[in-house]
Amino acid sequence: MSLFVTFEGGEGSGKSTQAGILAERLATAGLKAVLTHEPGGTGLGEKITQLLKWSEDEHISPLAEVMLFNASRAELVSRIIKPALASGKVVVCDRYVDSTLVYQGYGRGLTVSTVKAINSMAAQGLMPEITFFLDLPVDEGARRKFGTKADRFERESTDFHRRVRDGYRALAATEPSRCVVIDALLPKDEIANIIWNKTLAALELRASMMP
Amino acid sequence: MSLFVTFEGGEGSGKSTQAGILAERLATAGLKAVLTHEPGGTGLGEKITQLLKWSEDEHISPLAEVMLFNASRAELVSRIIKPALASGKVVVCDRYVDSTLVYQGYGRGLTVSTVKAINSMAAQGLMPEITFFLDLPVDEGARRKFGTKADRFERESTDFHRRVRDGYRALAATEPSRCVVIDALLPKDEIANIIWNKTLAALELRASMMP
Repeated sequence: MSLFVTFEGGEGSGKSTQAGILAERLATAGLKAVLTHEPGGTGLGEKITQLLKWSEDEHISPLAEVMLFNASRAELVSRIIKPALASGKVVVCDRYVDSTLVYQGYGRGLTVSTVKAINSMAAQGLMPEITFFLDLPVDEGARRKFGTKADRFERESTDFHRRVRDGYRALAATEPSRCVVIDALLPKDEIANIIWNKTLAALELRASMMP
Repeated sequence: MSLFVTFEGGEGSGKSTQAGILAERLATAGLKAVLTHEPGGTGLGEKITQLLKWSEDEHISPLAEVMLFNASRAELVSRIIKPALASGKVVVCDRYVDSTLVYQGYGRGLTVSTVKAINSMAAQGLMPEITFFLDLPVDEGARRKFGTKADRFERESTDFHRRVRDGYRALAATEPSRCVVIDALLPKDEIANIIWNKTLAALELRASMMP
């Protein structure tokens, strides 16, 4: 049974870990699941990710950045996500359109409606059924990432990361039926259980709606 | 006096050569001119060009391709073209929004309105005052390029290149005040003179409109 689930949150929020746990639980439960991520997830996407995260000496204007994220997204949606959903799989994606909206809109200061318009073209109208937003205080995120090699986004100012968190919270408030806000300070297992129960409920709802 | 001039045309049409000749004549005439090109023209743009033209083993879906061209464009417009025009220079650009419209719209079959919308966001509303379209029969373009190393676009089918040419012609017909169609089979010097006279006329018109 197809379902599209995304994970969102700031640096160090644990969303990649939780996306991995969910994909494993789905597989253990006998469901076909695909775990992927943005930017990246395809050959082209990984090359774009290199540019976006690790090009130390390259200037990247905010609008070019949005276009690069969306180039990666267009490829991922066309080649991985849409075919997986069409064949009845559950797709778990670590970051999706909300990340671009929040990082390039709220973070970089681009007009939110411009970012939304570009996102929606690359996503080809495909939105997730559930989005888990792992909400973490900015200081705690920085503490958790301390000592790891920081990419272009992780190196951004505390103010940037605060705008990102505020952006996520504003977004989640406008779409409460899709966005599940989870306190990322809770123990890992507890978060995993919340996510698992919500996902199961969504799958059961889908099953009950099948003819 | 600022002026934005673009060159368009299929493979082998001679537009890069003519763009170079125009930039030189402008400089000789004592005008400040900037010669640039798409995709590319910035550090980021050249890396994107590598991906677009020379990634032999990478699948690139048409929508991802449009986004990549526009990432390169957003950077070029923000960092090179807009600042040059603002400081009163003439900008000569080898390919611009019409290329994406024609290659990815007519060539790859994406909806023209989608390509237009993405183009216009990356171009930030900036359109050229004059576009020289060097029109060449597809067979002659292929003959001129024979023996050179062909990139991802040059390797496309004859049908693809025919759709591109037809797209350019359709586009030029809808915007006759901006697009100057030139028979690319004419001798190089004759083409250069047509371009020079049109450019001078546009500059004189601009000068006469100055307060």
